[in-house]
Amino acid sequence: MPAYAEMGTEELETLKHGLEREYAEIQAKGLSLNMARGKPGSDQLDLSMPLLTAVTTAEDCRAEDGTDCRNYGVLDGLPEAKRFMAAMLDDEPENVIVGGNSSLSLMYEAVARCWNFGTLGSEPWCRLEQVKWLCPVPGYDRHFGVTEAFGIQMIPVPMTEEGPDMHEVERLVRDDASVKGIWCVPKYANPNGVTYSDEVVRRLASMPCAAEDFRIFWDNAYCVHHLYDDVAEQDQLLDIGAACREAGNPHRPFKFASTSKVTHPGAGISALAASPENVAEIKKRLGVGTIGYDKINQLRHVRFLKDAEGLAAHMSKHAAILRPKFELVLTKLDEGLSEVGGCSWSHPRGGYFVSFDAPEGTAKRIVQLAKEAGVTMTGAGATWPYKHDPHDSNIRIAPTLPPLDELDAAMDVFVCCTKLAYTEKLLQG
Amino acid sequence: MPAYAEMGTEELETLKHGLEREYAEIQAKGLSLNMARGKPGSDQLDLSMPLLTAVTTAEDCRAEDGTDCRNYGVLDGLPEAKRFMAAMLDDEPENVIVGGNSSLSLMYEAVARCWNFGTLGSEPWCRLEQVKWLCPVPGYDRHFGVTEAFGIQMIPVPMTEEGPDMHEVERLVRDDASVKGIWCVPKYANPNGVTYSDEVVRRLASMPCAAEDFRIFWDNAYCVHHLYDDVAEQDQLLDIGAACREAGNPHRPFKFASTSKVTHPGAGISALAASPENVAEIKKRLGVGTIGYDKINQLRHVRFLKDAEGLAAHMSKHAAILRPKFELVLTKLDEGLSEVGGCSWSHPRGGYFVSFDAPEGTAKRIVQLAKEAGVTMTGAGATWPYKHDPHDSNIRIAPTLPPLDELDAAMDVFVCCTKLAYTEKLLQG
Repeated sequence: MPAYAEMGTEELETLKHGLEREYAEIQAKGLSLNMARGKPGSDQLDLSMPLLTAVTTAEDCRAEDGTDCRNYGVLDGLPEAKRFMAAMLDDEPENVIVGGNSSLSLMYEAVARCWNFGTLGSEPWCRLEQVKWLCPVPGYDRHFGVTEAFGIQMIPVPMTEEGPDMHEVERLVRDDASVKGIWCVPKYANPNGVTYSDEVVRRLASMPCAAEDFRIFWDNAYCVHHLYDDVAEQDQLLDIGAACREAGNPHRPFKFASTSKVTHPGAGISALAASPENVAEIKKRLGVGTIGYDKINQLRHVRFLKDAEGLAAHMSKHAAILRPKFELVLTKLDEGLSEVGGCSWSHPRGGYFVSFDAPEGTAKRIVQLAKEAGVTMTGAGATWPYKHDPHDSNIRIAPTLPPLDELDAAMDVFVCCTKLAYTEKLLQG
Repeated sequence: MPAYAEMGTEELETLKHGLEREYAEIQAKGLSLNMARGKPGSDQLDLSMPLLTAVTTAEDCRAEDGTDCRNYGVLDGLPEAKRFMAAMLDDEPENVIVGGNSSLSLMYEAVARCWNFGTLGSEPWCRLEQVKWLCPVPGYDRHFGVTEAFGIQMIPVPMTEEGPDMHEVERLVRDDASVKGIWCVPKYANPNGVTYSDEVVRRLASMPCAAEDFRIFWDNAYCVHHLYDDVAEQDQLLDIGAACREAGNPHRPFKFASTSKVTHPGAGISALAASPENVAEIKKRLGVGTIGYDKINQLRHVRFLKDAEGLAAHMSKHAAILRPKFELVLTKLDEGLSEVGGCSWSHPRGGYFVSFDAPEGTAKRIVQLAKEAGVTMTGAGATWPYKHDPHDSNIRIAPTLPPLDELDAAMDVFVCCTKLAYTEKLLQG
């Protein structure tokens, strides 16, 4: 079969009628499937049940320094929790602040602090005429939501196979002091699975910025979320903290991570790492709004996962569940769409998503068709700032939540909808 | 013995020498006691150990509406958690948002939201020339810390036996639209134990405010924290929400509470209640910074404490532990200082503090003397905005953390230090 784009009108019409029949048959099934959000499946949640009984006695509630974790105190995290999260963040415990159940909150609050109070002596961003932010696209909708809430002007920067297009990034930060930050998911990026190359990390660390208080928001959400156990098949990421120190820009990065997709999302722990000066400032401001985060939950995590080795062993169990799901998605896309043409998709070795680029101008229609056939996808456009994908092309596929059989059915729907939308588009001219 | 103020110089000198000897003897003991913060004692923490085993299986993790609480979602709290916290907040579940482990955070964030975004269409407070805030004194240092951080000008308002001086409050809010809020701990107030009278609540609710977006921050931290089981000996507080609705100012109050001093501080749950319009706006903004709070911990609390009745039974156990401590403090003050004169103190029927008013100009000296004798008190001045008590008089006594024997020793030190500081002061003329 030729690629759709090479077909004549008559051939396309025939194809379209066939696809419409197929689509009608799918609709008749009354499916209710969901590939919208990066949520773990219940078998993944089962892996962490020992967490809930890891701390049950008064003796259990003692931290290694003797702190009774049932009482107030300890703003920046227990020593053992800082050590554990430092391993995730590829940093030193003394540079770490352990937070509550949400790294998104830590990021929101970090933006809010710079906004209201500035950072390390800089002018509060709220006092500036304009604040701009670099947003590698496709990217994470909740990141964009934070900067949008503060009225920060978001500038999309294309992602390459090595990370954000650094020519573009360097150009944008060099002369414009109103560009204050960049969102990065540097490993197994949301959604396209890219891990930033060493060169990209070093250029982000060393690039001259007009804004002295330019900050890299380094959301290492998928730092240990490999799909393959063999180290040769795992992506490696250079530490942005070390790279920035070496480049003489030690205060540039704010690093974030959490156990949300390690244990139980919503009941995990989060952390940030930054330069000692940043950490000191953050602690000072953090102490205004809280006495401390949930230390008992910090203990649960350390007792259950223990250390970097325990964490890796645990993540390998997640990978065993997730691998078949990702492989199924890729097989379905390959079988269903490679001959169709006009589409491309990522082949991630970790993380939570497959990024799908549909023929220009069809993404919204595909998501709409899927919805009307009972399959909920992430909204088209969500991977762009202001939910506006100028190509109407990118769709984020989240294969983790549905069981395999549901995922199988959902991908058949997705493939059919994509083909149908593409024929419609081609016939419209 | 006459009151100190009636003594002659010689008599005071003799007294002072005796007190100095007594003080030296205390110092020689090398004590290390702490009456600084309102922390529960470890016997109180033991009461809530069943909390830690209240949710242990996958089945346990199901909320009553079927939500798997091990996964993402549910921004505003589980139905059962909203119902439970509504009972604490004296409100309806639909007006409640259940938060994380800290009501202080909820308050900080509420100020921050108004600051950055305004509320219900009002101008963001950060854009105004000046923002002012009413601070009943003595009050809670962490409240004052929040408004200070935002550069809000804090205006002290005297507390009476019925709550804040309402003539003063009404005068301050009537014509000045820059007065945007007031901190209130309306029941068993921190530190002076006062519960606002019905009249004060009604006047707060109905007073004309120049600022349409004036907000009452109603921190009902001690709503169920009675010292006595007999209802006749418990303070009753009118609901500010109902009073504001009746007065035609439904959006005026933000109500807050938490289980921090019910179960385990730092590992509890918090909540706010407000008008439906406020709640809708808060949820919209909250969702930018978080996907949801810790639902498993919400379940733990509801399973352990069950309902208002279970909560009351649990608080009665706290009261049994705290009552002797408060009674000891009052006995010690009465025996040690009532004849001395110049001092007064509160006689709370609930809450976590005794408020002590030392002779003017001696509070700092008393706290310093106590510290040098091994007894840490809350810093003098902490109960005033900017830590500045213009009378240098108020000291917050926190009797809950030390065991009875330590509290006994600490109060002896405190009484001695007070007498010594007072004689020093009188001799300085």
